[in-house]
Amino acid sequence: MIHSSSMEVDLTQLTIEDPFFRQYQQLIRDIVIPYQWEALNDRIPEAEASHAIENFRIAAGQVQGKFYGMVFQDSDVAKWIEAVAYSLCEKHDEALLKIAEEVIELIAAAQCEDGYLNTYFTVKCPKERWTNLAECHELYCAGHMIEAGVAFFQATGKRRLLDVVCRLADHIHRLFGPKEDQLHGYPGHPEIELALIRLYEVTENRCYMNLANYFIEQRGTLPHFYDLEYKKRDEKFHSNAHGPAWMIKNKAYSQAHVPLSEQQRAVGHAVRFVYLLTGTAHLARLNKDEAKRQTCLRLWENMVQKQLFITGAIGSQSWGESFSSDYDLPSDTAYAESCASVGLIMFARRMLEMECDSHYADIMERALYNTVLGGMALDGKHFFYVNPLEVHPKTLPFNHMYDHVKPTRQRWFGCACCPPNIARLISAIGYYIYTLKPDALYIHLYIGNTVEIPIGKQKLILRIQGNYPWSGRIKMTVLSSTPIFHTLALRVPDWCDSTQLHLNHKLSNGAINKGYLHISHKWQKGDCLTLNLSMPIRKVYANSLVRQLARKVALQRGPLIYCLEEMDNGVELHNLTLPQTSKMNVIKGQGLFEHQILIEAEGYRYTQNNPEQSALYHYDHLPTAKHPQKLTFIPWFSWANRDIGETRIWINEE
Amino acid sequence: MIHSSSMEVDLTQLTIEDPFFRQYQQLIRDIVIPYQWEALNDRIPEAEASHAIENFRIAAGQVQGKFYGMVFQDSDVAKWIEAVAYSLCEKHDEALLKIAEEVIELIAAAQCEDGYLNTYFTVKCPKERWTNLAECHELYCAGHMIEAGVAFFQATGKRRLLDVVCRLADHIHRLFGPKEDQLHGYPGHPEIELALIRLYEVTENRCYMNLANYFIEQRGTLPHFYDLEYKKRDEKFHSNAHGPAWMIKNKAYSQAHVPLSEQQRAVGHAVRFVYLLTGTAHLARLNKDEAKRQTCLRLWENMVQKQLFITGAIGSQSWGESFSSDYDLPSDTAYAESCASVGLIMFARRMLEMECDSHYADIMERALYNTVLGGMALDGKHFFYVNPLEVHPKTLPFNHMYDHVKPTRQRWFGCACCPPNIARLISAIGYYIYTLKPDALYIHLYIGNTVEIPIGKQKLILRIQGNYPWSGRIKMTVLSSTPIFHTLALRVPDWCDSTQLHLNHKLSNGAINKGYLHISHKWQKGDCLTLNLSMPIRKVYANSLVRQLARKVALQRGPLIYCLEEMDNGVELHNLTLPQTSKMNVIKGQGLFEHQILIEAEGYRYTQNNPEQSALYHYDHLPTAKHPQKLTFIPWFSWANRDIGETRIWINEE
Repeated sequence: MIHSSSMEVDLTQLTIEDPFFRQYQQLIRDIVIPYQWEALNDRIPEAEASHAIENFRIAAGQVQGKFYGMVFQDSDVAKWIEAVAYSLCEKHDEALLKIAEEVIELIAAAQCEDGYLNTYFTVKCPKERWTNLAECHELYCAGHMIEAGVAFFQATGKRRLLDVVCRLADHIHRLFGPKEDQLHGYPGHPEIELALIRLYEVTENRCYMNLANYFIEQRGTLPHFYDLEYKKRDEKFHSNAHGPAWMIKNKAYSQAHVPLSEQQRAVGHAVRFVYLLTGTAHLARLNKDEAKRQTCLRLWENMVQKQLFITGAIGSQSWGESFSSDYDLPSDTAYAESCASVGLIMFARRMLEMECDSHYADIMERALYNTVLGGMALDGKHFFYVNPLEVHPKTLPFNHMYDHVKPTRQRWFGCACCPPNIARLISAIGYYIYTLKPDALYIHLYIGNTVEIPIGKQKLILRIQGNYPWSGRIKMTVLSSTPIFHTLALRVPDWCDSTQLHLNHKLSNGAINKGYLHISHKWQKGDCLTLNLSMPIRKVYANSLVRQLARKVALQRGPLIYCLEEMDNGVELHNLTLPQTSKMNVIKGQGLFEHQILIEAEGYRYTQNNPEQSALYHYDHLPTAKHPQKLTFIPWFSWANRDIGETRIWINEE
Repeated sequence: MIHSSSMEVDLTQLTIEDPFFRQYQQLIRDIVIPYQWEALNDRIPEAEASHAIENFRIAAGQVQGKFYGMVFQDSDVAKWIEAVAYSLCEKHDEALLKIAEEVIELIAAAQCEDGYLNTYFTVKCPKERWTNLAECHELYCAGHMIEAGVAFFQATGKRRLLDVVCRLADHIHRLFGPKEDQLHGYPGHPEIELALIRLYEVTENRCYMNLANYFIEQRGTLPHFYDLEYKKRDEKFHSNAHGPAWMIKNKAYSQAHVPLSEQQRAVGHAVRFVYLLTGTAHLARLNKDEAKRQTCLRLWENMVQKQLFITGAIGSQSWGESFSSDYDLPSDTAYAESCASVGLIMFARRMLEMECDSHYADIMERALYNTVLGGMALDGKHFFYVNPLEVHPKTLPFNHMYDHVKPTRQRWFGCACCPPNIARLISAIGYYIYTLKPDALYIHLYIGNTVEIPIGKQKLILRIQGNYPWSGRIKMTVLSSTPIFHTLALRVPDWCDSTQLHLNHKLSNGAINKGYLHISHKWQKGDCLTLNLSMPIRKVYANSLVRQLARKVALQRGPLIYCLEEMDNGVELHNLTLPQTSKMNVIKGQGLFEHQILIEAEGYRYTQNNPEQSALYHYDHLPTAKHPQKLTFIPWFSWANRDIGETRIWINEE
């Protein structure tokens, strides 16, 4: 079923058994997917209306009504189906399958004769199809629907949605291209590129890959398509908070200011950027396109070396949900969108498929275990869209530069991109654990699972067990009966500087290459590999060019970034310091934090008596006393799961 | 000429002789006033068009044309005349007087039969007069014109403009008030209140004071006037960057959410707030209105104890140019408008007239010598509107939360409120030096000058000499020949903890009361009082509730706040630290800083080799070296007078 170009596991042959991740997958299955289904059907009274299913019903002619919602409302349904598909790989669920198939029939019924599929335009303004690519998300929605079709086919073998999206892709392929009678455009919001390449891998139809290539190469060329279509529409535009025709003027916002090959820095809307680069990296590998590979390397490098938050988040500013200048990483006003970290992980996966350098997997893990998991509440019912590294709730309602920041996770959003994006990533996490290369089976993430992997004409069945991310001890057992000679390449994370490997209880050595420990062996049933990754508490410091983080320190253990919360440490977290010589211990979490590992550290608190009665400025010295205080750090991904309070990752060191 | 209720000096009887301030007054006279005149007449090619004089010509029927500019464009002309008036007090200038009188004739010609005077409405929409007080600045412009009329009369004895503004005030007085056929409104932007009270002091017409009282007491009452007039206009509104009808919805923006008597915190647009409170404080004194005095005390206290920048600036956020929550004082995103500090000084002056507590004068001096002087370039030709305490120029174009921040002073502005406001304050600085009370002559600011002051039926002529703000040695000499028994009350600034006083070269003691050293004496010609205010370099620390300033220190000497600039200290000012034990020396400035006193301090720089080639995050320790570096601090008011570079007031202490 999987084309040979694919380096991904077959998700139907993989079972997550990880004590940590299983609970997230369960939450997705038991809470998120059903809840999202209710939301898509407008059955959650306290949530903002979605209308997404209703839009399809109207488009299909089943009911009368008006389109309601964002121009990209359809994509919520597509992302839900994609998450359902992955979830069905993990655990069969006849009832859920039935609902999904009904939705797919509804989508098929909403598709136009010529293959066109988009309820906003079909219902609201059928004559305006393809007249505003810059702003209207038509190709973006198509991309998500294609991803859903591919995923559902891979999960169930059922072609119904795949056939629908092939017709949609064929329709787009007829319309777009270099010929004179074709549209020379490309999406304002990239997504279809990465989707078309996935569609190619399933269908082997090169047209789809070529179309993706066209969209990528056409982007940002002159005369500029955004300007041309803008003029053709008599300069009608969609006005937004930034003013009229803003996306047409600010082409860097959608990475369309110059061709991608000329872009030197990660700029603009962070989600668009990583989606675009995910498709580009995938295409670069499949087409052996060295120029595109160099573009990916260059832009990846800028993003992670100069614009990445310690939590694996990107997007330094609320304006345009976008990147800023190099080394501008404000903790409190950060945008750091959940979706952007989901996209960053997708980008990292495609970079790993080009070259298994553990650096990509390190970033992937950082984004996954911090921003993505932090984007979801421990109850599975609440989500963050924006993930700042420091929150001072008392100030949020007063200083409007924090308008995008919420101190608690929200149930759902009018623009509901993040929850379903988190859901589909977590449900498909198997794709990110492994990369299947001819030379080796690369293991990036130590998430417990059992997987069956084809090697040549044989099958390797491998089980990974452990208590990650709390423990660095990982056990890998071979379950397949036929002996297979192959190489396992085990990632040594960047946060780990001491590893120990045993093969069948004997100390073993592997060669480290680009951050992976390579062990070649004739694997047979019962073979047991144990990897011990030392997991001390690490202090983290930012590059000296990050002006917001000078003299500050953060704590990390394993892949997890830690934070202080008011709940454990009192208010005014800015008055706490961590001395360089602080003794730090891990402790077991309790209650809400059961099974989690917390950190206790000897710190100080500077206290002032009745500061509200004291002057705003003091000469010579501040009348504060310095008291030792035991600081309690919790894993940042589990912040804001109690009452509203201050949170802070970076604290002053002394 | 001055009513007995006034506690102000007669500016025509005062001459600034201060080496420091004289240069500023000269700049205002020689550069700013002529330059602004050219700007008002649209004769400066590189500046944004003003059209302000042209609007009056059109309104007067002298030329044909359309109104152009802000709804408050008229106020620029008024503020210019006011500055001219003060400047004429200081130095007679026949040519300037002639120009001013011509402008006054033009204004008189633009006045309507019924006394109405506003070119925006007269030219553009005469039927819409008084239909949108919330947004349209009609009363605000009237207020500025009234101030100009009062000032021009006080400066020259010429009544022409005074008569014009009396007719305007009479017109407003007829229209506004509690009667059924009157408008029950008040200005969206306060200003007319303080102007009417000044008009009362000159004319002794209590109607004007009563009208000011009406505006103040009516503000924020229910049913809400903004809503009523909004409905009356069929909900037509002026849309702005915040969206439609924004000022009507956000009543706290203009301090109209509840009556002033119920307001507990400084909120909303900072300039509006201080203008409103200036009028309120003045009225509270004249009417012996204890409730209003309590309101002033309460709101003053919140503003200066919880929302004041160390530079005497207010307005923590760009959104609405407004206050934020208590203790929210971000250095880099601060709004800190020049006009707001001008208004703060006006407010402080009225508080001093109620009660001479040096606390008010301390704040006044802080705002004057830092934000107001810093708002103007040393060349007198460039101005800041926004005065952040930290600027990182490389980031400004990329992170849009800095959209309001400019790294260099600008020549003029489309919304040109700040330059003429600075000009009129500096020209009228004599008003802020002294408060004339029956019990004593209070001296707040040690700006060199000679002044003639009526005491009973006699006159005291006093000269203040010194080299303030560089030196704390101040000499006061009596020049009047008739001996007068009176008390001089000399402010002991909050930054000074050691004073020495000599009367006629003999050590003398005065009683300190509310921060003023009182010396009662029969003053006669040749009496010489020398005050020595010790002026060491002071380290300043912020209250522990200011989260942005934890572990940070600033330097102050005398009233001046100091800062680091890239020019003197290299880039990445955030990597510099000041040790607690640092040795600090004053040094004489050179070149651009001639006559200024700079500070040198032993500090450290943390440097990283090739940080751009280094990782964004480092475990365990940052590969930096700590080098001693001599830090050079310049007075902050003179920042950004060289090339564009980083600036920073608050630095990390260790």
